[in-house]
Amino acid sequence: MSEHTYPSVKDLTLEEKASLTSGGDAWHLQGVESKGIPGYMITDGPHGLRKSLAASTGETDLDASVPATCFPPAAGLSSSWNPELIHKVGEAMGEECIQEKVAVILGPGVNIKRNPLGGRCFEYWSEDPYLAGHEAVGIVAGVQSKGVGTSLKHFAANNQETDRLRVDARISQRALREIYLPAFEHIVKTAQPWTIMCSYNRINGVHSAQNHWLLTDVLRGEWGFKGIVMSDWGADHDRVASLNAGLNLEMPPSFTDDRIVYAARDGRIDPAQLDRMAQGMIDLTDKARAAMSIDGYRFDVDGHDEVAHQAAIESMVLLKNEDAILPLKKDAKIAVIGEFARTPRYQGGGSSHITPTKMTSFLDTLAERGIKADFAPGFTLDLEPADPALEAEAVKAAEASDVALVFLGLPEAAESEGFDRETLDMPAKQLDLLRRIAAVNENVAVVLSNGSVVSVAPWADSAKGILESWLLGQAGGPALADVIFGKVSPSGKLAQSIPLDINDDPSMLNWPGEEGHVDYGEGVFVGYRYYDTYGKAVDYPFGYGLSYATFAISDVTVAKTGANTASVTATVTNTSDVDAAETVQVYVAPGTSDVARPVHELKGFEKVFLKAGESKTVTIDLDERAFAYWSEKFNDWHVESGEYTIEVGTSSRDIAATVTVELDGDGKSLPLDEWSTYGEWESDPVGGKVVEAAAAAAEAGADGLPVLPNNAMMRMFLKSMPINSLPTLLGEGGKTLTSYLLDEYAKLTK
Amino acid sequence: MSEHTYPSVKDLTLEEKASLTSGGDAWHLQGVESKGIPGYMITDGPHGLRKSLAASTGETDLDASVPATCFPPAAGLSSSWNPELIHKVGEAMGEECIQEKVAVILGPGVNIKRNPLGGRCFEYWSEDPYLAGHEAVGIVAGVQSKGVGTSLKHFAANNQETDRLRVDARISQRALREIYLPAFEHIVKTAQPWTIMCSYNRINGVHSAQNHWLLTDVLRGEWGFKGIVMSDWGADHDRVASLNAGLNLEMPPSFTDDRIVYAARDGRIDPAQLDRMAQGMIDLTDKARAAMSIDGYRFDVDGHDEVAHQAAIESMVLLKNEDAILPLKKDAKIAVIGEFARTPRYQGGGSSHITPTKMTSFLDTLAERGIKADFAPGFTLDLEPADPALEAEAVKAAEASDVALVFLGLPEAAESEGFDRETLDMPAKQLDLLRRIAAVNENVAVVLSNGSVVSVAPWADSAKGILESWLLGQAGGPALADVIFGKVSPSGKLAQSIPLDINDDPSMLNWPGEEGHVDYGEGVFVGYRYYDTYGKAVDYPFGYGLSYATFAISDVTVAKTGANTASVTATVTNTSDVDAAETVQVYVAPGTSDVARPVHELKGFEKVFLKAGESKTVTIDLDERAFAYWSEKFNDWHVESGEYTIEVGTSSRDIAATVTVELDGDGKSLPLDEWSTYGEWESDPVGGKVVEAAAAAAEAGADGLPVLPNNAMMRMFLKSMPINSLPTLLGEGGKTLTSYLLDEYAKLTK
Repeated sequence: MSEHTYPSVKDLTLEEKASLTSGGDAWHLQGVESKGIPGYMITDGPHGLRKSLAASTGETDLDASVPATCFPPAAGLSSSWNPELIHKVGEAMGEECIQEKVAVILGPGVNIKRNPLGGRCFEYWSEDPYLAGHEAVGIVAGVQSKGVGTSLKHFAANNQETDRLRVDARISQRALREIYLPAFEHIVKTAQPWTIMCSYNRINGVHSAQNHWLLTDVLRGEWGFKGIVMSDWGADHDRVASLNAGLNLEMPPSFTDDRIVYAARDGRIDPAQLDRMAQGMIDLTDKARAAMSIDGYRFDVDGHDEVAHQAAIESMVLLKNEDAILPLKKDAKIAVIGEFARTPRYQGGGSSHITPTKMTSFLDTLAERGIKADFAPGFTLDLEPADPALEAEAVKAAEASDVALVFLGLPEAAESEGFDRETLDMPAKQLDLLRRIAAVNENVAVVLSNGSVVSVAPWADSAKGILESWLLGQAGGPALADVIFGKVSPSGKLAQSIPLDINDDPSMLNWPGEEGHVDYGEGVFVGYRYYDTYGKAVDYPFGYGLSYATFAISDVTVAKTGANTASVTATVTNTSDVDAAETVQVYVAPGTSDVARPVHELKGFEKVFLKAGESKTVTIDLDERAFAYWSEKFNDWHVESGEYTIEVGTSSRDIAATVTVELDGDGKSLPLDEWSTYGEWESDPVGGKVVEAAAAAAEAGADGLPVLPNNAMMRMFLKSMPINSLPTLLGEGGKTLTSYLLDEYAKLTK
Repeated sequence: MSEHTYPSVKDLTLEEKASLTSGGDAWHLQGVESKGIPGYMITDGPHGLRKSLAASTGETDLDASVPATCFPPAAGLSSSWNPELIHKVGEAMGEECIQEKVAVILGPGVNIKRNPLGGRCFEYWSEDPYLAGHEAVGIVAGVQSKGVGTSLKHFAANNQETDRLRVDARISQRALREIYLPAFEHIVKTAQPWTIMCSYNRINGVHSAQNHWLLTDVLRGEWGFKGIVMSDWGADHDRVASLNAGLNLEMPPSFTDDRIVYAARDGRIDPAQLDRMAQGMIDLTDKARAAMSIDGYRFDVDGHDEVAHQAAIESMVLLKNEDAILPLKKDAKIAVIGEFARTPRYQGGGSSHITPTKMTSFLDTLAERGIKADFAPGFTLDLEPADPALEAEAVKAAEASDVALVFLGLPEAAESEGFDRETLDMPAKQLDLLRRIAAVNENVAVVLSNGSVVSVAPWADSAKGILESWLLGQAGGPALADVIFGKVSPSGKLAQSIPLDINDDPSMLNWPGEEGHVDYGEGVFVGYRYYDTYGKAVDYPFGYGLSYATFAISDVTVAKTGANTASVTATVTNTSDVDAAETVQVYVAPGTSDVARPVHELKGFEKVFLKAGESKTVTIDLDERAFAYWSEKFNDWHVESGEYTIEVGTSSRDIAATVTVELDGDGKSLPLDEWSTYGEWESDPVGGKVVEAAAAAAEAGADGLPVLPNNAMMRMFLKSMPINSLPTLLGEGGKTLTSYLLDEYAKLTK
């Protein structure tokens, strides 16, 4: 069948159209074989292919899946700040889908890490929507460059595991637009994911699957989304309502296609809407046809492992490095302590859990590379009580060594899809062991394995070096060895603030909600937007990460490129004798504003690889959105006129230089009316003239207009009064004045 | 006309009824003289009578009013924790109303001090609704015991001045019920204020004046309010909508009674509703008749001044007293510094600003009592730059003295009705002066004059003693002298936390709102409910205040008095040789709960006056409400079964003893349904049986019921699933199981 004759909804019966809007089984689309529309396979992602061995039977089994390259989950990859690298990961995943005949891989997940206790933070990218969008887009674009689809998820506001199947996320429009939607928006607008997966939860009372505002008005209307929306598994509770709202595909199938047929017949579904939803499904299969028709394709297992290796290297964040304890010298007497060194925790738990093509632990790598070290597991990877024998052995090994390299972290039982954590702390037995090790050896470097932030401050004094390695995927062992022994410098930067105390996080006041709802009371002040705006101490700030090299940022300039756009340049120099990478971060700090804005927000970044002594100049463009806030008043983005400060730095709290730019503003305004205050009338260009004319007329004694009281308190009250309240202060004259103002304003503005 | 023949709505024409629902002028009801219904005067309060000299003309003039006793505003009086004293203040105010022929005095205002920057905090009582309600009720009961009405205001959620005439306060039901309404509720239920004044603002989108839920469902339906609701001045924007919502009286009049007439004629107003609203107005005048018919009454000016004097004494809170710097010895060489000592700031700005019957400054009092002191004003009471000559004189005086008594505070320009403060700091020139004084004299005691909290921590090191005197009314001078020289011990306790930094307050994330709305994102975590629950440091905690005496609390016991009620006893002993008063505070700390509850909440208190060495035992009853939270799920108060801790102490952070009580709970539950999770089914008494029966039937192979997966992750997923989602996990068998559960549950519960 040639492309020109691929079927459209016009070729289908009502029943066939209805059937397209539900899966064939848990892991397949429902094709219409008789019309040549295939029922392709779709599988979980997002950091590698999870094609269940049971997929062909349509069952849900999270344990057994075909081997696939396990890339670092987003927890790690997000710290790379390297979209090109992430794109390569996406390309590799796309190739693996081709081999496995998978038309759509379910990911990436770009929900905001509203609170670090969120059980699925390891699958998500950042507390910052700009970073999340500009990183995760690489997965979408990379996979889709191979002719395979992605499913951007979980749309939207699925920021916790607690009661996630029902919870009503009560969020202001502004917080939605500025924090919870922009990562989706950026990816939709720049990479057109073939599919989007709606979330389980409700948003302001409406389930995402049935949310017309979300799936149709915003996603398709405002953002121009061309693909299809599928339900998260079981998120569609009312097929008719969901289809009307803009959901193309119910997953897994409930085998109730007849309900769609009946609803279309009796008018509860507009036939045009059913056609749109079904045509989206046909278009999806059409897009996948080329790749799905490639037979016998085998992906490059070693090549993909190398991509995973590079991704793992760039995922690590060096938090602390006193006395340059890292990199370690290979000839030092090293004690490697901690079961994680032998049994790495390399991915998170839940639907993203995949079977790697290979797995090399840090200990394996040392053996392969002929690096000698004493190993003691120290503890078991669970939440059981400490084992005194293991501890004693570990302390003894530490005591007998020049340096103790201690692998600590969260065992799988401590974090997973399905539940939120209750503490940032690592298991007590691990921290007890660390203290005992620090008592016998002053040269301790800690390597952390965890999917979301853990508390560092309580034990940081016990370690000269702290390397946050998150979850590193299958090539974590070699990557760790590369960084720990100085083959490459660490270059990761935190995509998430590390607080001193979880109670410092303002989302804790409404976490994880209660009685079926969760109020996003902190509004836009998520992560560093809160800590930096309210001047609160953090342990490690957003964007932070050390290197074995040193860098200088210089020659920062900004040029206006339009009424409300600008371009920033900066030179970054590697001032050391070590090759390494630095990430230049651009934050925009608004001036005075009509609304409470974060003191600054990330609006651009570029990771720069520099040889020892090398300099490069980077240019980062700031579009109008970089300066805008979401105005509930205008129901639109709004750029105010005035001066904006551009901060260029290497974390949200390490700003190397600032420059300012004066923007014109977008000129948006609302007409004055009876509810506008007298102060707003005074400060409006037209309103001000009318107010002056009224005052002059009153002084002249005309028309019963009142002369306004002139004492300070009365003037203050007056300024805050909607003009429809003037009679309260001025009696009958107030009515005359209100009418005068509205009439004269109408004349001048019509 | 005898009482038996006082007119009712049945005697009135439609036009007359309509006329009753609006004022006659800004300060009078609109009577129906022909039918014998008088148009009584009503005036501002709330800490004394503000009968405008212009009142007879109906004009709004905040400056000139007839002399009346100026009692301490609520900022001070609330620190007394003495309802009996507050009742005496109310009685005195009522007597002054009789003399001035005022039928209703507008107050008290019991809005919660959500944020200490609130411009009108000086008129409000507390950050805690229990304390606010149990104190302010004394004003209502006291005034009304004299046959004069009060107007409890501003109903409701008027917690800021910024945009107060329009702002939409977006608040959860739980925060409304637990924080913003209970002070009103307690006073309505226990003292039946004759009138309530609705606020200007909107609540969740609806203006208070038009808010049927607020004015009718809750106020009258749930609380049993028998009086009338009037609008704040200018808060009624739609007389028809407001009257339908339950507003009896528009103030001031818009002279649009005809609109009510037309609306009643064409059915937009139910005649019965107009009758109810008008009858309320008739009843109000009927209640006032006895007192308003007393002619020639003269209140006891000196007696009322003495009440104001005692109230002022109990309003002061001793924050710090190192080296027992207070009380001062009269024969010490004292420098009194600060213009406030000569020109006291004794009340707040705005509609509550009254003309006192007498005024004695601290300096005047020293002169009257023959206490010698050098005086230097040090600064002027404004926001102008420092005057070097005044400063030099003050420093010189301090240097030449044994002790410097430094009066600092907020000048009137820094806080008032009409605007919110932007900082907690006092004017820089005052703090600079304090530092210079501390440099030359180590014996510094600071006396603070301010209507709401000021920052103390930044300068506290400069003073050995800090006496927070708030605004003390007309008798502040003698009261200060009594306390400062040890005639009486200070006994005030903070009704409001003093934070270290205003940015520690979680309401700052949504303060004061923007674009016409303010989100109460902190929910119920206001004031100490936040600081104590989240373990955040404060400068001085809620309930705190020092004494010249020392006390011990002992023998704390609790006895259950019902299924969900208890009685607490405690013995408090004055362990010093100084007569003084201590306030025993009872906080209830819930155990584990389905919702996020404050770690403890004030639920009882008693101020105990004790001679040196004396002991008294107090008994404080805790009703069911003391243990309840507002459940949005039940749309009702809910007491969970389990153990509650009763904390008895002298501030929210000075708990002397705890006891526990096991409550039965109120047994409220909702029936299970398809949206209940499998975990909720398992833990429900009936649901658990059904679940077990299903499992047994499945094991027996019956009915196509599925045997549930048994691995830990699947069980976890299952627990969180609404049972209508079971097919997602279990396929067709899931449908069978869901139906089985619902059917069997229906059989067991019908």
